[in-house]
Amino acid sequence: MIVIMNQNAGQEQVDSLISLLQDSGFGVHLSRGVERTVVGVIGERTRMEKLALDARAGVDRVLPVSEPYKLASRTFKPEDTVVQVRDLKIGRDNILVMAGPCAVESREQILASARAVKNAGAGVLRGGAFKPRTSPYSFQGLKQEGMELLEEASRETGLPVVTEVMDSSTLPLVARHADILQIGARNMQNFSLLSEVANAGKPVLLKRSPCAAIEEWLLAAEYILKEGNGQVILCERGIKTFEKFTRNTLDLTAVPVLKHLTHLPVVVDPSHAIGKWRYIRPMSRAAIAAGADGLLIEVHPEPDKALSDGPQSLTPENFQAVMQDVTRTALDMHKVVGSVS
Amino acid sequence: MIVIMNQNAGQEQVDSLISLLQDSGFGVHLSRGVERTVVGVIGERTRMEKLALDARAGVDRVLPVSEPYKLASRTFKPEDTVVQVRDLKIGRDNILVMAGPCAVESREQILASARAVKNAGAGVLRGGAFKPRTSPYSFQGLKQEGMELLEEASRETGLPVVTEVMDSSTLPLVARHADILQIGARNMQNFSLLSEVANAGKPVLLKRSPCAAIEEWLLAAEYILKEGNGQVILCERGIKTFEKFTRNTLDLTAVPVLKHLTHLPVVVDPSHAIGKWRYIRPMSRAAIAAGADGLLIEVHPEPDKALSDGPQSLTPENFQAVMQDVTRTALDMHKVVGSVS
Amino acid sequence: MIVIMNQNAGQEQVDSLISLLQDSGFGVHLSRGVERTVVGVIGERTRMEKLALDARAGVDRVLPVSEPYKLASRTFKPEDTVVQVRDLKIGRDNILVMAGPCAVESREQILASARAVKNAGAGVLRGGAFKPRTSPYSFQGLKQEGMELLEEASRETGLPVVTEVMDSSTLPLVARHADILQIGARNMQNFSLLSEVANAGKPVLLKRSPCAAIEEWLLAAEYILKEGNGQVILCERGIKTFEKFTRNTLDLTAVPVLKHLTHLPVVVDPSHAIGKWRYIRPMSRAAIAAGADGLLIEVHPEPDKALSDGPQSLTPENFQAVMQDVTRTALDMHKVVGSVS
Amino acid sequence: MIVIMNQNAGQEQVDSLISLLQDSGFGVHLSRGVERTVVGVIGERTRMEKLALDARAGVDRVLPVSEPYKLASRTFKPEDTVVQVRDLKIGRDNILVMAGPCAVESREQILASARAVKNAGAGVLRGGAFKPRTSPYSFQGLKQEGMELLEEASRETGLPVVTEVMDSSTLPLVARHADILQIGARNMQNFSLLSEVANAGKPVLLKRSPCAAIEEWLLAAEYILKEGNGQVILCERGIKTFEKFTRNTLDLTAVPVLKHLTHLPVVVDPSHAIGKWRYIRPMSRAAIAAGADGLLIEVHPEPDKALSDGPQSLTPENFQAVMQDVTRTALDMHKVVGSVS
Repeated sequence: MIVIMNQNAGQEQVDSLISLLQDSGFGVHLSRGVERTVVGVIGERTRMEKLALDARAGVDRVLPVSEPYKLASRTFKPEDTVVQVRDLKIGRDNILVMAGPCAVESREQILASARAVKNAGAGVLRGGAFKPRTSPYSFQGLKQEGMELLEEASRETGLPVVTEVMDSSTLPLVARHADILQIGARNMQNFSLLSEVANAGKPVLLKRSPCAAIEEWLLAAEYILKEGNGQVILCERGIKTFEKFTRNTLDLTAVPVLKHLTHLPVVVDPSHAIGKWRYIRPMSRAAIAAGADGLLIEVHPEPDKALSDGPQSLTPENFQAVMQDVTRTALDMHKVVGSVS
Repeated sequence: MIVIMNQNAGQEQVDSLISLLQDSGFGVHLSRGVERTVVGVIGERTRMEKLALDARAGVDRVLPVSEPYKLASRTFKPEDTVVQVRDLKIGRDNILVMAGPCAVESREQILASARAVKNAGAGVLRGGAFKPRTSPYSFQGLKQEGMELLEEASRETGLPVVTEVMDSSTLPLVARHADILQIGARNMQNFSLLSEVANAGKPVLLKRSPCAAIEEWLLAAEYILKEGNGQVILCERGIKTFEKFTRNTLDLTAVPVLKHLTHLPVVVDPSHAIGKWRYIRPMSRAAIAAGADGLLIEVHPEPDKALSDGPQSLTPENFQAVMQDVTRTALDMHKVVGSVS
Repeated sequence: MIVIMNQNAGQEQVDSLISLLQDSGFGVHLSRGVERTVVGVIGERTRMEKLALDARAGVDRVLPVSEPYKLASRTFKPEDTVVQVRDLKIGRDNILVMAGPCAVESREQILASARAVKNAGAGVLRGGAFKPRTSPYSFQGLKQEGMELLEEASRETGLPVVTEVMDSSTLPLVARHADILQIGARNMQNFSLLSEVANAGKPVLLKRSPCAAIEEWLLAAEYILKEGNGQVILCERGIKTFEKFTRNTLDLTAVPVLKHLTHLPVVVDPSHAIGKWRYIRPMSRAAIAAGADGLLIEVHPEPDKALSDGPQSLTPENFQAVMQDVTRTALDMHKVVGSVS
Repeated sequence: MIVIMNQNAGQEQVDSLISLLQDSGFGVHLSRGVERTVVGVIGERTRMEKLALDARAGVDRVLPVSEPYKLASRTFKPEDTVVQVRDLKIGRDNILVMAGPCAVESREQILASARAVKNAGAGVLRGGAFKPRTSPYSFQGLKQEGMELLEEASRETGLPVVTEVMDSSTLPLVARHADILQIGARNMQNFSLLSEVANAGKPVLLKRSPCAAIEEWLLAAEYILKEGNGQVILCERGIKTFEKFTRNTLDLTAVPVLKHLTHLPVVVDPSHAIGKWRYIRPMSRAAIAAGADGLLIEVHPEPDKALSDGPQSLTPENFQAVMQDVTRTALDMHKVVGSVS
C-alpha cells in the first residue's frame, strides 16, 4: 500500500504513522516530494487494511497496489478453470450455451422449450422456478412445482439444468434438482447466501450485480471460492447507466478484462442486459468474439405468451440462427461448443 | 396502460390485441395517428402486466400510466406515516437522528459512542454487529457479542438501537435486541429477507440500493408493507455514478420526490454516501433543509482507530456541531428533533 | 404524442387541453381510464413540441410515440448509407479500418505510423493535429504543422486522413487537408460547430459524447444531415459509468441498435473507450461481430514514447493481429474490409 | 507521482525507468514490496505527464499525488474569490440569486419576468437568447432580438443579466449586452470557446457538463483562469445517472467539495437538474444549506405557455416562497442575499 500524506501534514504525524507500521511488522519506505510526503508500506494487504490508515490524522489517501482478491486471481492460479457439468465442460476452449425460458410456466412450455433448445444445440437448460421480481405483484414462479417440471424436462432431453436459488430455505430443494446453482444479480452481495450455496457442492453461476464494479464482483466470487468450491462461473448481465434504450448496458469489455484478471469461466447473458430480442443475435456473436466461455439466453416457444420478460425471449427459430453464428465464431476462436468429455 | 404499435403493424395484429384485451375484461380505446396506432387499455395495472403485451407481434412499447406500487403510495394513504420507536417519533414534523459507529468493536467503544451521541442529542444508537463486507477478508462484525454490547449500551443510555439484519438465521437474535431492523443497501432486493424481517414486528429501516431507481426502492418497501408491517423508514445512502471524488453520489432530490410519492418517513445517511467526514456536516444540514425526517450518521470516539469506515466517521465534537445545525434547520422547517411522546 | 393527465385533473383542464389541440389543428382521442384520463394527439411531433403540453395545468406527463429525428431515421431512408472516402467505401457490406496515433508528434512518428497501418491493411490514417485536452497543461497538438505532416503521410502512403476539427477558426485549414472531418466527443453537442462542419463538403465522423443517449446522438447527426450533408459516420467511443477498471464503458449494443434505427454507418473506437491496449484486440473482433462498419484504432510505432494516450495504443505488430481477426470476422459476416471501388 | 510496476516487471525495466526520470531531472525513491516494486517520482506534475510513464514496459499504473489544476486550487489561493457584478457580489458571505425564464420569448414575457424576479428579490436576470437545443427542430432562441430585449429588461429593472454564449461568432454581441457570460453544460469542454470567453473581460458562469467529474470541471475553469480572467462562477446543474424520475441527478455534495478544493464561488441550478418545478423549492433551500453561494432558477410568468422547459419553471408566486426560504437559510449560515457594495 501507499499512504499519501496531506500537504500540510506535520512531521509528528508522519513519525507516528511510521511507528505504528513498524510496530505492526510492516516494512516502510519514506519519500518526501515537493508537495507531499508519501509512505510505501510493505506487507500483506488484508492485514494492512485492519489498521484503517486512511482515518489517521495527516493522511490524505491510501492506495492499494495489489488486488484485494486472492483465490479468484490469475496470479494465484494462472491456468483456466474448467467447470464440469455432467459430461460437459466450460472454460479454456470449451463453450457452453445455456438456454430456455425466463420462468417455468407450465409442463408444456418447459418441455417444448427444452426440446427446442436441445435441438438447436444448447448444452444446458435454463428456467426459473423461484423468480425474484421487482414488484411483489408480479409472477413469482411455480416454485416447487417448477423445480419438478425442470427435472422432468432435464430427464427427457438429457440437458443439465441451471436455475436460481433465492434463499437458504429453498436451497436444499433447488440443489437436489439443479446441476448449476445460479446466484441472481440482486443477490450478488447477499454474503450469507453466497457461503451457503458454495457449500451445496455444485457449480455456481454468479451473476454480476447491475451496480457491481468488476473488483466487487470478483470479491463476491471470492466468498464462494473461500468455502472450498472452485466451480464458479461468472455471468455478465449488464450494468445500470444513463442509457435507457436498452434495459441495461451490456459491459462486454468485462469479458476480456476478466479473462485477464481471473482463471474462472465467464459467460454473457445478453437477454437480460438488453431486454429486446432483436439485438440478442448480434450481441451473442460479439460476446463469443470477445472471448466469452458461454452464453445464457432466453428462449420461449411462444414469446408473446410469456409470463415474464417476453420481449427479450427468442423464438426457437431465432435461437437456431444464434447457435449457428456462435458455432462459426467459436471455430474462429479455436474453441468448441458443447464438447462432451 | 398505453400500447404503442409498430409503424408497420398490420390491421390483424391490432385486431388480435384488442380481442385479447376485451376477452380479458379490459376497456379499450383505439387511436390511429399519422405514424402509429395507439391502444389505451383501461383496467388494473397488475392484472394487465400478466398479459405481457409488449411481447406481442406488432407491439412496439407498452407505457404504464399509473404507479406500480400501492400501499406505499400517497394516493393510497395521503397522510404522513409516523413511525414510533419506544417513546420517539419519526415522520410528519418529527425529526430523528440516529448515530453511532459503523461497527461495534468493543465494550468501551460502543459505550463511549452511545454516551457521546446521547449527549449531543441523538435519539437512536446505530452500530453494526453483523457487517456485510465487500471482501471476505474484511472485519465482519462481533456478531452475537456485538448484539449484547449494543443492548448494554442501550440500557445504560436509554437510547433505542438500529442495527442491520443480514439473513434469516440471525434475524431472531437481532430482532430480540434491536428497536429498528435495518435492511442494508446490498439486500434491498433480497425479497425473501424483506418478507421475513417485515414479520418480526418491529420498524424496518430500508436502505436504498446504490443502483435502485426510486420506483424499485418503493417496490421493495411494498414487499414489507404487504406483510402488514406499515412501520417502514426509507434511507437514502447514495447511488453509483461516474463521479469518484465521493464514494457514491448522494441523491438528495430523492427526499422531496419521496415525500411527494409516498407517506413513509425518509432519512438520509450522508456518511456512507459521501465517505469523507469533512462533508457530513453541510450535507446533514442540506438533508434536513430538503425535507428529510431524520439522519443516520457515523460517529466514532476515535475515528482513526475504527475497524471499518474510519474516514467517514465524525468525532463526538463534530457530531455536536451537526446536531446544532440540524436543530436550527429543523426549527426553520417547523419541525422538532427527537420529540418524546 | 400521448398526454397523461394527473389523477386529480379536473374536467375543465381536460377540456381546455382538447380545445387548444383542436384549435392548433391536431386530431384528438380521449380515453378515460379507472385512474387516469389519457389524451392521444395526432399530428406532427415537432409542431406539437412547441405547445409545451407538459407544462399545462392538470398534465402529468407527455409521451412521444415517434422518433424525434427524421433524416437520420431508417423510416425516412430504409437502405444503408454508404460513405465514399476517395476510392474507399464504408457502410452496407464495406468495412473500413482507420488507424494511427492519437496525436501527430513528429515527421518520423507520423510517417512510421502511416506506413505501419497501411502495411497492416488499414484504409484510413487517423491522427490529431488539434487536440482537445482535459487539462490546459497537456500537449495540445502540433496544429498547422501537424496538418501538413498528416498530408505528407497521406501523400506518401496514399491513405486518406481523418482528423478532428475543434473550432470554426481552424475549420478551413483542417478541411483543406483532411478527407474525413472528425467531431470529437466533447463537441458532439457544439451545435454551431456541427452546422459549420456539415457545410465543409466532406464526410463527417461524429463521435458519441460519453454522456449522450443514443437518441441525443442521432439528433446531433440530424444537425449535420439538415445542412444537406448526408455523409455522416457515427463513432461509438464509450460512455461514462461507475465502472472504473476501463476508462469508459464501451456500449457495443449501440451498434446493432443504431443499425436498426438509422441508415448511417457506425464505427467503434475501442482505444479511447477502454484505455488499455491489452483489450483492444478482442473488442475489435467483437465490434465487427456486433455489426460495426469499421473501427478507429490507435497505433503508435513506439507506444511508450507517445505524448498522449500511450497506454491505449497498439504496436504495429499487435495491430496486424487485429487486422487479421477483423478480416476473418468480416468474412463470416459476408463483408469486405477496405474494398476499393 | 507514484509508478507501480507490474508484478513481473524485470530489473532492467525498473533501471530504465529510473534512468529516464533522473535524466529528466526528477527525484526518485525506490520501494520494493513483497508483490510489487513502486517508484516515487519527485518534481512537477505537468512536466512529468509529458513522459507518458504509464505506457512504458513493465509499468502497471501511474498514480498522481497532487491536483492537476493550479490557479483554481485553494492551495494556490486560500481565500474565497468574490466576483463583482455591477454593485453586487457573489462569494464568501454574499449569496446571489439569478432568475428568469429559460428563453427570451417576447418583449412582454421578458419584461414581466424581470419585474417579477426583481420584485421577489433576485439579484440578476437570467434568460437565453441563443439556445442550444438537443433537436434541430426545437426553438433555438430569438438571437439578436433576444439580446436586445434582455438589455431593455435590464435597463428597466436595473438587474444585471446572465446569458449563454454558444460560439465565437456571436460572442461580441452577447458580451456587449450581458453582465455575466454563461458557458452551457454542453460546451464545458469546448476549449476554444473557454479561452475566447475568458478574454471578453466579463465574469464567466461555467456550468458543469452532465458527465464531468469534479476534477474535469475544475480543469475547464483552469482554461479560463489561465487567460487571466479570475472572475469564474461554477454552476452545478445535475449529472447523468440511471435514475430517471428526475431529469438529471443534482450532485449537491459537489458544493461542499468545491468549497474545499477551490476558492471560486459555486452556484446551483436546481431547475435544469431536476426538471420538475415541484422540487425546486426544497432543493433551493438545501443548496444554500449545503453552502452554495447562489442559485440559478427558472421563473416564467406563465410556465404553461413557455416555449422551452415549461415544466421546470416556477411561477412568480412560487419563486417568492423560494426567496423567503433562501433568505432565512442564508441568515442561519451568516450570509447575506444580494448585498450591494
